[in-house]
Amino acid sequence: MKKVRVGILGIGNVATGTYKTLELNREKIQSSTGVDIEITKILNRHPEKERGIDVDPSVYVQNADDILNDSDIDIVVELIGGIEPATEYMAAALSAGKHVVTANKAAIATNGERLQKLASENNVMLRFEASVGGGIPIINALTTALLSNEFDEILGIVNGTTNYILTQMTENGSDYDAVLKDAQAKGFAERDPSGDVEGDDVANKLSILMSLIFGVKILPQDIPTQGITAINKSDIDYATHFGCKIKLIAAAKKIGGTVECDVQPALIPYDHPIASVNNEFNAIFVKGNAVDDIMFYGKGAGPLPTGSAVMGDIIEIARAIEKGSAFDAQPLLKYDSDLVFTGEGSNQYYVRLMAEDKAGVLGNVSSTFGKYGVGIESMMQRTESKNHNNIVPLVFIVHETERKVLDEALKELVSNSYVKSVDSVIRVEK
Amino acid sequence: MKKVRVGILGIGNVATGTYKTLELNREKIQSSTGVDIEITKILNRHPEKERGIDVDPSVYVQNADDILNDSDIDIVVELIGGIEPATEYMAAALSAGKHVVTANKAAIATNGERLQKLASENNVMLRFEASVGGGIPIINALTTALLSNEFDEILGIVNGTTNYILTQMTENGSDYDAVLKDAQAKGFAERDPSGDVEGDDVANKLSILMSLIFGVKILPQDIPTQGITAINKSDIDYATHFGCKIKLIAAAKKIGGTVECDVQPALIPYDHPIASVNNEFNAIFVKGNAVDDIMFYGKGAGPLPTGSAVMGDIIEIARAIEKGSAFDAQPLLKYDSDLVFTGEGSNQYYVRLMAEDKAGVLGNVSSTFGKYGVGIESMMQRTESKNHNNIVPLVFIVHETERKVLDEALKELVSNSYVKSVDSVIRVEK
Repeated sequence: MKKVRVGILGIGNVATGTYKTLELNREKIQSSTGVDIEITKILNRHPEKERGIDVDPSVYVQNADDILNDSDIDIVVELIGGIEPATEYMAAALSAGKHVVTANKAAIATNGERLQKLASENNVMLRFEASVGGGIPIINALTTALLSNEFDEILGIVNGTTNYILTQMTENGSDYDAVLKDAQAKGFAERDPSGDVEGDDVANKLSILMSLIFGVKILPQDIPTQGITAINKSDIDYATHFGCKIKLIAAAKKIGGTVECDVQPALIPYDHPIASVNNEFNAIFVKGNAVDDIMFYGKGAGPLPTGSAVMGDIIEIARAIEKGSAFDAQPLLKYDSDLVFTGEGSNQYYVRLMAEDKAGVLGNVSSTFGKYGVGIESMMQRTESKNHNNIVPLVFIVHETERKVLDEALKELVSNSYVKSVDSVIRVEK
Repeated sequence: MKKVRVGILGIGNVATGTYKTLELNREKIQSSTGVDIEITKILNRHPEKERGIDVDPSVYVQNADDILNDSDIDIVVELIGGIEPATEYMAAALSAGKHVVTANKAAIATNGERLQKLASENNVMLRFEASVGGGIPIINALTTALLSNEFDEILGIVNGTTNYILTQMTENGSDYDAVLKDAQAKGFAERDPSGDVEGDDVANKLSILMSLIFGVKILPQDIPTQGITAINKSDIDYATHFGCKIKLIAAAKKIGGTVECDVQPALIPYDHPIASVNNEFNAIFVKGNAVDDIMFYGKGAGPLPTGSAVMGDIIEIARAIEKGSAFDAQPLLKYDSDLVFTGEGSNQYYVRLMAEDKAGVLGNVSSTFGKYGVGIESMMQRTESKNHNNIVPLVFIVHETERKVLDEALKELVSNSYVKSVDSVIRVEK
C-alpha cells in the first residue's frame, strides 16, 4: 500500500483533532482509499504539555524547518493559525513541492491568491476545507458536485461562538455579558473574544466563500462588518415577537454586475431553515441557478469536526498521489470575474428608538422616515416598558432601504428633543 | 480543450434538466474544468414532442444501441428510470468501456453491486449522485470530504412528494386525499402516486445510503416500510400539540454489530433541524464519529436540481478523463461489513386509540400496556372530540419499545369491548 507522509505545524485543538480522527478511522480510510497515511512529524514547542493524544515522542519537532525541509514529507498541514508566520511556512512548503492543507481562514482570505499561485507553479495542491464552517464540507461541495451551478446568493452562520451566545440569550433570556462569561468558562469563547464577537472571523470566511463562488477578491477588512456586542435582551424579545431569531449572518449577493456583502446581526424568520441553527452549529445556505436553494449544516468548530475536514483534504491529496495523476491544477479560489463590489446592499431593518410617550411623537417619527423614503412595514410600542422619565421604546421594521439613507433619517430623528436615542438597527432577512 | 462526449438515455424531466444545466453554465464549467462537455446523442422515441429545450434534431436517436455502440461517446447517462431495461443498458455501456452516470435509485439499490463490479472490471466509473436527494450532493460528501468518518446514524427526508403532502396537511389543515389531488394537479405527485406515498421510493434511497456508509447490502424490499396513506388530520393536530411535525423518515442506525432500519412516518420535535424541512425539500442528517451531526438540505426533485447532480457526476468523470488519470477504482457502494441486519429497531411511538368514555377505561388501558412492559410517557384525552356513540380518542406517547411488543399489547387492547380501534401508530423521533 502506498504510504503518504504528513507533517503537522501546530499542536492545538485542530491538530489533536486531526490526529485523533486518523487514529479512530485508520482502517476505513486505508480500505476506502488504498493509501496508508502516516503523520510522521508534528511541530510542538512544548512537548512536555499533555495533549490528550498518544504520540511517539520522536514525532515531535521543535522547529518548523524540520518539517518544511524533510524530503520524505508529502503533505504539510498548517494548523498554527494567524496570518504570519503561517503564510510564510505554507509558501515555503509549496515552493519545496509539498502539498499544503490548512484550516487558516485569515491566511487564506488575505494571502490565498499568492499561495494558490505558488501551488500551481509547483504542481501541488492547496486545500483549506476546514477554514470555513468547521466540519461542513462546503468548499468541496461548491467546487466539485455543485460546480455546474452559477451561484448568486450566500447566507451563512459561520461562527459558533457568537451563535452559541445568541442562542443562549434567546433561550434563557440572559444578558450578553452573562452569556459571554459562561461561554468563556465552557471553552466556547476565547479569553479575548473580540475576533469572534466583532465579526472579523466571519468576514474572513465570507471573503473566502465569495472568491470560491463569485470569483471576486474582496478582502475581509473591506467587508462592512458589525458584531453582536450591541445586541441586548430587549432586541431578542422584540425579534421573537416578530417571529424571528437574531443571528450573526454573513451575506453576499450577486445583482447584475455587482456584488453586495456584509457581516451583521439579522432577524431571521422562524420558517427560514437557518433559523433553527443553534448553539455551536454553523450552516451555509447558497442559491444556485440549477440546484436552487441548498444548505449545509454541522459543527463549525471543535477538534474532531474540524479534524474531519482536515483529514478530508489530506485524503483527497493522498488519493491523487496514489493514482500518480497530474494534480488538480484548477485553483479553487478565483479572482477572474469583473463583478463590481458595491458594499452593503439594501435591506429591511429593525429599528429600536427611545422616545417620549406623548401625542404626536409617532406621527412625527413616521413623517421623518417618509421624508427619506423609508417606508414602515410594522411598528410596535409597548407602554408597559415606559420608564420613570416617560420614555418608551418604539420599534419599527422598515421596508428595504440603503443603510446610509436609513442612517440619515435616524440622524435627523435624534436631533429632535422627543427622540432620546437610537438603540438598535438590525437587518431583517426576508 | 479536451472534448468529452455524452450520450443520454431518456428525455424526461431529469434529462431536459441536465441539458439545460449544461447550456446555462457551459462557460463556467469549461473555465473551471478545462473540459468541453458535449451532449452528442439523446435517446428520444418521440422526437415530435415539445421538450422545452433547443436541441439540434440530429442529436435525437430512437434506439439505445445508437448510443451504447457509439465509440465516440465517453459517458452514457441513464435517465429512463425503472430497473429494466435501464440495468441492461448500463451493463452494456460499462462493458463497452464507457463511464456511466445515472439518477436511477431502483436500479442502483437492486443491481448496484453487479454494475459496480462491471465498472471496476472495465476500468470505468459509475456515478449516481442524483439517485438520492435530488440536487443535494450527499453521495459525493459521504465518499470524499467526509470519508474520514465512521457513520452510525442516518435520518432522512428523501421524498419530495410525500413531504409536500404532509407539509400542506400541516399548514392548511387539509385532508390527505384533498392534498394529494392538489399535488397531482401541480405535478408534484404522479398520477399513480403509490411508489411515493407507500414509501418504496424512500426504501430504495435508504438501501443505497446504507451500502455507502455502513457497507451493508439490505435490499429495498427487506426494509420495513410504511407510507403516509394512513396519516390523517387529527394525527397531525395531536403531533402539533406534542410540539412535533409528522414527516416520512428513512432511518438507519448501527448499534454494536447490528443495523436497524425502517421507512415510516415519524413525529419530529420542532427543534430538530429536520423538522423545518418543508414541501418539496429534502434533507439528510447523518452522524459521524469525527464530524458529529451534519445535515444536507435542498431540493429533492425537479429538472434543474436533479440536473445539477447529474452534471456534477459528468464533470467528475470529465475531469478524470482530462487528467488522463487512472479512474477511481474505489467502489462507492460497499458490501463488505459483517453487520447483522436486525430489522426495525426500538422506538418511542405515538398511539391513537378510539375507546369508550367511561370510568376505568384509562386504567385498564394503562395496565395492559404495563403487562407488556410498554411504558407511557404522556397521554392526552380530549373529551370535546367525543362522538355521538360516546367514543373518544385516547392518545399516548409510549417509551422506547420494540414494534412487535407494542403490536401485541395493542392486539390485546382491541380484544376488549371498550377499545373500538387502534387508528394510528407512529414512531416518535427523540
